Amino acid sequence: MSDAVDCVIDLNADLGEGFGRWQLTDDEALLSVVTSANVACGFHAGDPSTMRRVCDLAAARGVVIGAQVSYRDLAGFGRRAMDVPPDELADEIAYQIGALEVFARAAGTRVSYVKPHGALYNRCVHDAEQAGAVVEGVRTAGGGLPVLGLPGSRLHEAARLAQLPVVGEAFADRAYTAEGTLVPRREPGAVIHDPDEVVKRAVGMARDHAVTSRDGRRVAVAARSLCLHGDTPGAAGLARRVRSELTAAGVRVRSFT
Amino acid sequence: MSDAVDCVIDLNADLGEGFGRWQLTDDEALLSVVTSANVACGFHAGDPSTMRRVCDLAAARGVVIGAQVSYRDLAGFGRRAMDVPPDELADEIAYQIGALEVFARAAGTRVSYVKPHGALYNRCVHDAEQAGAVVEGVRTAGGGLPVLGLPGSRLHEAARLAQLPVVGEAFADRAYTAEGTLVPRREPGAVIHDPDEVVKRAVGMARDHAVTSRDGRRVAVAARSLCLHGDTPGAAGLARRVRSELTAAGVRVRSFT
Amino acid sequence: MSDAVDCVIDLNADLGEGFGRWQLTDDEALLSVVTSANVACGFHAGDPSTMRRVCDLAAARGVVIGAQVSYRDLAGFGRRAMDVPPDELADEIAYQIGALEVFARAAGTRVSYVKPHGALYNRCVHDAEQAGAVVEGVRTAGGGLPVLGLPGSRLHEAARLAQLPVVGEAFADRAYTAEGTLVPRREPGAVIHDPDEVVKRAVGMARDHAVTSRDGRRVAVAARSLCLHGDTPGAAGLARRVRSELTAAGVRVRSFT
Amino acid sequence: MSDAVDCVIDLNADLGEGFGRWQLTDDEALLSVVTSANVACGFHAGDPSTMRRVCDLAAARGVVIGAQVSYRDLAGFGRRAMDVPPDELADEIAYQIGALEVFARAAGTRVSYVKPHGALYNRCVHDAEQAGAVVEGVRTAGGGLPVLGLPGSRLHEAARLAQLPVVGEAFADRAYTAEGTLVPRREPGAVIHDPDEVVKRAVGMARDHAVTSRDGRRVAVAARSLCLHGDTPGAAGLARRVRSELTAAGVRVRSFT
Repeated sequence: MSDAVDCVIDLNADLGEGFGRWQLTDDEALLSVVTSANVACGFHAGDPSTMRRVCDLAAARGVVIGAQVSYRDLAGFGRRAMDVPPDELADEIAYQIGALEVFARAAGTRVSYVKPHGALYNRCVHDAEQAGAVVEGVRTAGGGLPVLGLPGSRLHEAARLAQLPVVGEAFADRAYTAEGTLVPRREPGAVIHDPDEVVKRAVGMARDHAVTSRDGRRVAVAARSLCLHGDTPGAAGLARRVRSELTAAGVRVRSFT
Repeated sequence: MSDAVDCVIDLNADLGEGFGRWQLTDDEALLSVVTSANVACGFHAGDPSTMRRVCDLAAARGVVIGAQVSYRDLAGFGRRAMDVPPDELADEIAYQIGALEVFARAAGTRVSYVKPHGALYNRCVHDAEQAGAVVEGVRTAGGGLPVLGLPGSRLHEAARLAQLPVVGEAFADRAYTAEGTLVPRREPGAVIHDPDEVVKRAVGMARDHAVTSRDGRRVAVAARSLCLHGDTPGAAGLARRVRSELTAAGVRVRSFT
Repeated sequence: MSDAVDCVIDLNADLGEGFGRWQLTDDEALLSVVTSANVACGFHAGDPSTMRRVCDLAAARGVVIGAQVSYRDLAGFGRRAMDVPPDELADEIAYQIGALEVFARAAGTRVSYVKPHGALYNRCVHDAEQAGAVVEGVRTAGGGLPVLGLPGSRLHEAARLAQLPVVGEAFADRAYTAEGTLVPRREPGAVIHDPDEVVKRAVGMARDHAVTSRDGRRVAVAARSLCLHGDTPGAAGLARRVRSELTAAGVRVRSFT
Repeated sequence: MSDAVDCVIDLNADLGEGFGRWQLTDDEALLSVVTSANVACGFHAGDPSTMRRVCDLAAARGVVIGAQVSYRDLAGFGRRAMDVPPDELADEIAYQIGALEVFARAAGTRVSYVKPHGALYNRCVHDAEQAGAVVEGVRTAGGGLPVLGLPGSRLHEAARLAQLPVVGEAFADRAYTAEGTLVPRREPGAVIHDPDEVVKRAVGMARDHAVTSRDGRRVAVAARSLCLHGDTPGAAGLARRVRSELTAAGVRVRSFT
């Protein structure tokens, strides 16, 4: 029956977010849970050896590799919005995708999608110019890569215009407004810390395509991927629980590609 | 007759060696002279937009694109030797090649060879471990790319072992010893500044496969490429003169690929 | 008479804006003209050896040294506005001032003022939060350093609140509105390229404390310093001309400190 | 009696070795144990905000602040030896000291000594040229700062020549040769992992000025400071135990300054 088609969800997480001596994400544990790995490409995190290691592990486990592209900002971990001129930004995006592609290919696979990181992700929700630049960078890199992002974002708008596939994602640990948008982080209750609640929302998003908004309404969520966080204590354990409860609820966890 | 085969030489130069606001090489002028462009990949010089621009120009003029890979050292322009562990170094090399490949492809061509820059170039003459790491990085990048370097270097030795093609280069503006090696830069007379002399040596190297050593002997030079310098005042003018005198002497200037 | 007091002007320019192998400003020539040197501190330009050299030269010529502080953005030359959280920004500013202070002291003098660079300068005209952060960084660095900037800017407002001295500057090569503010760079005629006009405006600003606005009105200019550009071809020559015409017009050129 | 004078030891540890989002050392815990804090200055680790925070904490607890200077190598954590020309290296050292000084002063104290980090530390044991450059950088920074390092190193030799105070340190978790030098890390048994053994050796070094060498001899150790490692799991716990056992053994733990 048609439910079989609908009850499929991808799980993505940011991985390889160390740099040299510094570690952040528990790449090995998360790669046994997620189906899509957003691999840092060196601009906010991700030295070449970490990139290679994560690509090798991902390929060995059948996890799809995506380029997690960012502003050039190691000191700020890509969390500080920057007014990068569109041409420069497009080239910076393409550079990062190309660098990761080498390690994906060496591992016997390919970079299969692109997702902006941090401040760039947030900016591309509303800023048409920077969203267009990211998409231009994806086009420069070639191969018609899908763009993973927030449904309704300028990023997805620009990707569609450029005839690139788009994949929408939802966040099980974030509160939603009645309009179906994310409650800004600075507002109280924006992040949901209770693991039980996170798991419950994940299942609701994947199976019922809906979530309860901050003010108690049922809101539709059109997402083919759920973003799990990998840089908090207990992240891998929570991710594992989300995955097993999804499976128990009859949702198939599978890459969107 | 067989001379036709022999009387062919490639001209290579380091290009795209600016970074952001800073310019160094006269890329446009040199791209009208050389047949191979060693494009900086971001580790000693070369921001993404410069890389794209140089690739676009090179492709438009039929100049072959090579990856000029370096230690990660913007502050020292890649001229400070670094004890990078071989595994890390290999990954850093692959990263740079991949980043450049994106712009070469976007320009309708490919990265067609690899040449180490500065301190890495010098170190790979004698240091088998680092030479092996560079070659490992080239292998990771895939495609069996030729390695451009000094004949007899550890780099070429390692490349041959890995079954990668090697291309030897010579320097018309450097003095040679009777053994056919370069006179170290710190010794007097190591660099030849007289343009007439440089042009004469270039022709001798390309046509007669020989040069006069510091102590007056005729030394064999087995080079399929001549390296022209692009970062000195008057570099483009001298390069043009070398090329026209080579042509006048019956030497065909053509990429080695 | 009191005019003698008024007819004094400081000339400042951005110096030491190279990085490693790359040069930009003609430091030596400009240090023979200006009375205040805005020395780059390593975040948008300025390696330690360049900083030392500029400080040594400035001290030898009696030119006052100021810290030209910036966003951390070598690739963008500090020209890309960044949403740096105020606490981080304050610490980044203090770091830069401290680094420069070492070379100023080694040269027998001190860092005597602070001026933000590029996108940070522009942002601090209107953004009270970032302006406050810059001022907080100046306070962390200690010594009650004067803040050089645009009269009426948030930066000056924040500095006054923190009881730091402020020094206003004007630009002889920029068009002014009838309100006495700068015509934005993106508008036609924003930058004045005619050297004669620049010199004439410089004299008017220094002697008469006025300039003719874009629409032909006489506008008051309350500036104790004129900013000369050092990174354009012919910059040093124009600077010399401005200085000699100021002197000829009876204006004394002298540091504001 | 004279024993009172001798039975004093300083405890130093590397602190503030995070960068932006990345943490490494448990600064808060270690600052409650050590008497000297080697604070990273931004070249191998240490963003400005971390530097400020560590300085504030150190000052509040009476821990002496030293500048832990390094090669410019964030990607390699300063562990890759670099052939930096002496003039440049000296300026890079001075830059780092100056940047840290700002935060030490803001915290009401001063940078009170200098210790090279990682590959620079190791290189300055045998390399007179780089050792001399580090000392030249310390002199540029002014104030006649003591240099903390290995007794008998070229670094101490150069510091003495420059009339700077030297402070020798020992490592309770490293094996020693019969000549009193460290067993190189690549040799088996070079690092002592047994906490009991580390504590015992620390007490022996501080109270008896001796340690048992790898081959069972008693070797004199002339060290006024013991270096504790802060970047390993359990580092803070072991450090606390070392300190309490030293105190129990009648050794006073006190800064060397």
